[in-house]
Parts: sequence; structure tokens; C-alpha cells
Amino acid sequence: MTKEPGFKVTPYEAKGEIDYSKLIREFGVSKLDNKLLERLKKHTHELHLFLRRGVFFAHRDLNWLLDEYEKGNKFFIYTGRAPSKGSKVHLGHLLPWIMCKWLQDKFDAEFWFQFPDEEKFLYKQDVTFKDTEQATREDMLDVIALGFKPEKTHFLVDTKHAGIMYKPACEVAKKITFSTIKASFGFNDSNNIGSIFYTSMQAVPAFLPSILSGKNIPCLIPLGIDQDTHFRISRDVMPKLGYYKPAIIHNVFLPPLFGIGGKMAASSTGESAIYTTDSPEEVKRKINKYAFSGGQATVEEHRKLGGNPDVDVSFQYLKMFFEPDDAKLQKIHDDYKSGKLLTGELKAILIEKIQKFLAEHQKKRELAKKQIDKFIYKA
Amino acid sequence: MTKEPGFKVTPYEAKGEIDYSKLIREFGVSKLDNKLLERLKKHTHELHLFLRRGVFFAHRDLNWLLDEYEKGNKFFIYTGRAPSKGSKVHLGHLLPWIMCKWLQDKFDAEFWFQFPDEEKFLYKQDVTFKDTEQATREDMLDVIALGFKPEKTHFLVDTKHAGIMYKPACEVAKKITFSTIKASFGFNDSNNIGSIFYTSMQAVPAFLPSILSGKNIPCLIPLGIDQDTHFRISRDVMPKLGYYKPAIIHNVFLPPLFGIGGKMAASSTGESAIYTTDSPEEVKRKINKYAFSGGQATVEEHRKLGGNPDVDVSFQYLKMFFEPDDAKLQKIHDDYKSGKLLTGELKAILIEKIQKFLAEHQKKRELAKKQIDKFIYKA
Repeated sequence: MTKEPGFKVTPYEAKGEIDYSKLIREFGVSKLDNKLLERLKKHTHELHLFLRRGVFFAHRDLNWLLDEYEKGNKFFIYTGRAPSKGSKVHLGHLLPWIMCKWLQDKFDAEFWFQFPDEEKFLYKQDVTFKDTEQATREDMLDVIALGFKPEKTHFLVDTKHAGIMYKPACEVAKKITFSTIKASFGFNDSNNIGSIFYTSMQAVPAFLPSILSGKNIPCLIPLGIDQDTHFRISRDVMPKLGYYKPAIIHNVFLPPLFGIGGKMAASSTGESAIYTTDSPEEVKRKINKYAFSGGQATVEEHRKLGGNPDVDVSFQYLKMFFEPDDAKLQKIHDDYKSGKLLTGELKAILIEKIQKFLAEHQKKRELAKKQIDKFIYKA
Repeated sequence: MTKEPGFKVTPYEAKGEIDYSKLIREFGVSKLDNKLLERLKKHTHELHLFLRRGVFFAHRDLNWLLDEYEKGNKFFIYTGRAPSKGSKVHLGHLLPWIMCKWLQDKFDAEFWFQFPDEEKFLYKQDVTFKDTEQATREDMLDVIALGFKPEKTHFLVDTKHAGIMYKPACEVAKKITFSTIKASFGFNDSNNIGSIFYTSMQAVPAFLPSILSGKNIPCLIPLGIDQDTHFRISRDVMPKLGYYKPAIIHNVFLPPLFGIGGKMAASSTGESAIYTTDSPEEVKRKINKYAFSGGQATVEEHRKLGGNPDVDVSFQYLKMFFEPDDAKLQKIHDDYKSGKLLTGELKAILIEKIQKFLAEHQKKRELAKKQIDKFIYKA
């Protein structure tokens, strides 16, 4: 018997309080340390807050990617999102996408975004292709709203682009046994044969631009650490097909409102996450009602003992996402810890930041409705 | 422990002397009996020798198909061939295709031909997509040479048509577990995940015309009995997706030159089969050298004891393929059995028939080189 860990992270499950240091060891990824960040900064001249503050905390082969870049071998960026039923885009989903946007700007890179619209269909009994078709459109709006350059951004929808994706997926699939899938994803003989094949399709965008251009192009994949499993398998396959292993940078999960630990879950009641389509009132209500507080039970106690920003979800959201100014963040941290800043006041700061962000996002999301065609890859 | 049968028939293996009556029971198919043939004849006015002489010996739901036809619900025909390396088309491959051509003429039916160019790639370590691409072209020439109507014939190549095939394949795949695949194909955890998924792609052409036309169209699949396994699984799935179960008619294998039993094997030394590209000299040499004889050791003994047409490969080829005239065949049978006709004379009859057939086929095969584009389905 193997020891049950207190947490579990696979593409199909993330539960328990996640120990990211342990994940680094278990997944065999490397820590994204200061030395490497400094190396990156030589090219970007600044570091996004996601990099400065450990939101992206691990990587595979980023040094190699920068070696290639410094030799003049430019990379492209690849990430994705599996459209589902009743799974709207929330703030947590945006972490890797915003990173992609920043990287596209800094490196003037081509960006490939995969919408594997068969994944949830295959994994969830009640999800239909009608559901995923609608969800694909909604998800596209959120990606476009982040400001990617249409001329350098290419959307792939698995069922629509299978004409160029299925053949390379077969090349990947030929080199992966069901034993490997069982061990990596926790599958068994009751899994359907589409779900068993699926990881091959997720591998394809990491080398499709190399196929299409006829030359080997390095790839960088920003993704949530839970998705690493797919590439742990397919990275071993790609060199056998004559392509580079993609480099990866991994982000932690944005904690759910209810508290640190676990992954911001989109598909539960809808109360544990802030969606990109939430109204200002919903944002205010959810943060005030649910955002786990590191403060004390009464104002008097709080003034006396101070709060704990390390477990306070509102503070974490500011740190991980909404307050890019390091000095301002430090002041909020210190004031909250000393008891000068009350939980309600801290929440008010966050609410305003999110409302402002979403007002802008929703405006761009509306404009995106007329831009979808420009982003879909024309095979 | 289950008892090992003396023969084995799956899409990936056919060995031993095949007991077709036993296959009917084991596969759960029905015998193609005289009553059903008479019913078919009401529409076709004659019966192809493949039907009169038991080359097509079993079926699934042919009565249902004719019920639908008589109600004015026309069917389409579907069969296929997996392109491989070093596996040229031989006479045995032509059995279902010639049946399809006859059915297309008799019923003025649409005909869909699948070239699953990933199948052998996935199943055979040494087969590359370069191999299958070349083989696909060669195989197409043999199909076209049989005289199908281009305006009613549609070639599907899995890796090229995945844009319309992958999504319906996922719908099939969602309803098939790996347990089912293991039990049906004899797979295990060492099989690659592409081969595990593949049967879903083979199912698609049986209902793709219904998807494309937006109305449910019955389907008839003529195929070698070894391919039945794929549809034993997917026929159960299709009604769950809202489509008819396809009807099937099954042919026996054309015996290899070496003797009755087994399937004419294309990929061995090349000496056990007559290929569509064999020269007249090769045909003569192979038949004279290899065609298993039911005759006696010496002319004297043969004159005295007579030959056995039931095990004589040359006679079987005449019966199954090359002598449509029942009276002429009966005379050859009787003369051989009585000893009047010698083995060399019997072989000479067959050689001339095959040479004539192949001369015509090869001429049309040459002309087919300029017709391929007309047959490939335009999605």
C-alpha cells in the first residue's frame, strides 16, 4: 500500500491543502528561483507580479528555452482551457493567460491557445458537445478580452482542427501505453477509450507550429500545476518524433474564497469563485460574505492582536493578482498585521480593485464578440 | 481456463483452419440463407456469384435493411481498407469491394470507402505515415479500377478527414470502455492509446452520411468476417447516439494458394497470394507452383481415382471468383472429380481467367491514376 497524501493534484482532481514544495519534488519540476528570474529579466526588463510573488513557482527547461532564445531561436507560447458545462471562467483561470499575454508582449511571441472541446465531453457523463460548443465561445471571449494580438494569436478547437491535429496526435499516441496512462492519471479499465486517447491531443499544439512551419520551434507553456501530468508524459515522446520538449512554467492555484488550500473551483455552487462575468454587486457580496478572513473575531481584539495576512484570502488576492505596487502591498500587509487595518477595510480595497478590473474586462469581453473569427486558426 | 479454439479470427489475427459455422455462432451473426437471398433477388433480379456460392455467408440485420428499403428508405454502402506497408491489394481484398460495386449498381446506392491510414501505423511498430500515405494512393487505384460511380462514391482518409470524423468518433468512444476493448480485441495494458481509441474511427463512416445530410440513413457494410469485431462493439453504441445500427454482410476469406484455411495473407512472402499488380507470368508461376492441388500424385492415379475439388485451391478460386457460369463450373467439378480433368488442365483454366481479369483490372488501375481527386470526399 502506498501512503495516502493529504492532498491530490491531477488534471482531473485537486483537493486538500496543497503543499507546493512537495509537488515540486513529486512532479520532478524545478523551482523558479531568483537566479532564473533575473536571467529572464535581462530580456523583459521587468518582472510581472506573478513572477515576483511566486504565483509562477516552478518550471521545466526554462533555462534551455532562454539558451535557445539567446541563440536567436524564438519560442512560441501555448496554453489552453477545456470548455465544459456550467464552468465559467473565474479569476484563477486567468493566471496563466495573463502570463501568456505578458510574455507575448515582452517577446513578441506567437501564441497558440487550445480549446480541447472534447476533453470534458469525454470525462463527464452529462456534458454534451452542445454544451462545449457554447462554452468554447464564452471562453474565447475571456481570452480575447485580455488583449492578445490577433495577428500573432491562434485558437485551436480540437473537434474543428482535428484535420491538422489527429495525425500528430496518433504519432504521440503510438508511444504511450495504457499502463502509463493508468499510472499517471489514476485511470482503470472502466475509463472510456476517448478519455484514454485524449492526452495525445493535448500534446499536439506544443509542436504543431513546428509541423506547420517545417522548422523546429521551441515552445513555452504557462499552466496550472495540475495540468503538468499531460506534459510529463508527452514531453518524453516529442524528442522521439523529432521535436523539442516544450518548456513549462507552472502557477499555483488562486485559493478559493473559502480559504487557502485547494484550487478555485468553478463548478461547485458558484459561491467560492469570482467569475469574469460577475457584476460589481456580486463581487462585493461574495468577498464580504465568503472571503476567508485572517482577522480577529471583534474589532477590539483585531486592534489589539492584529490580523494574519498569510491566511487572509483578500490579502492573498491582492498579493497574487490585484496590487502590483510592492510598497502599497507591504503597507497593507503591515497595517493588517498590526491591527490598524480592519478586515472590512481590507475587503473594501480588494472589492474596488476587482470591480475595476472586471469593468474593464467585461467591456473588452463585449467587444471580443465581434473578433472571434480573427483568432481562430485557418487551416 | 477457456478452451483454446483451433482457429482464431480478430481484425488483427486470422489463423488456423477456420470453421465458419462456428464463427456464426461465436460472433452471433446470422446465416445468409436462401430465403433471405430470394428476398434480396426480388430487388436485384439476379444474384451475384458471391451470394449464390456462399462467399458472403453471414449477415446482421439484412432483413431490417430490406424492410427499410421497401418502405422507400434507401441505404448507403460502406466498406474500407487499412493502408499498410508492403501490403499490396490481393484477390481476397477484392471480394467485399466487388460486392459493393454490384450493390451500388443494383440499388443505385451511395458508397463510402474508408482508408483508415492510422490503423496499421498504430498497430505496427515499423509502419510510418509515409508508408501509409503511399499505400493509400495505391489502394485507391484498386478500388477505382472496379468501376464505382465517381458521383456516388466518397473516399474518406482518416488523417485527412479527421476534421469531420474525430468529433463523432469521440461520441462513440465515450460509450466504450477499455474493458470492452480488452475482451473484444485481446488487448492489454501494453497497447498504445491510439490503437485503443482506433475502433471509434472505424465506426464513424457507418453514420457520417446521416450527420452530413441531417437525416438518418440506413447503412450496409460488406466486409470480411474478421472485421466484424469492430462493429459488434460500435453497433451497440450507434442507437444511443440516435443512428441506425448498420446492417452487415460477411464474406469468407479467399483461401491462400498454399491451401484451404486461414486468410489470404498479403504481408508474408508474397507467394501465397495473387496481387492485383501481378504480371501474367507471375500469375502463371504462382498458380502452377503453389496452388494447393486436390489431385493425385500421378496422372495414372488421377485418371483412376479422380481429384478432390473441395480442397483444390484452383477449383475454389473458380467457384468463389472466376467462373460465374454455374453449368461450366459444374462440368469442371465433375470432370476433375472423375479424373477426366488433370490438375495441370484445371490450373490452366484458372490461370487464363485470372490473367484476363487482371489485364482488364490493371488497365483500369492505370486510368484511375487521374481520377483519384474525383473520389476523395470534399468536406
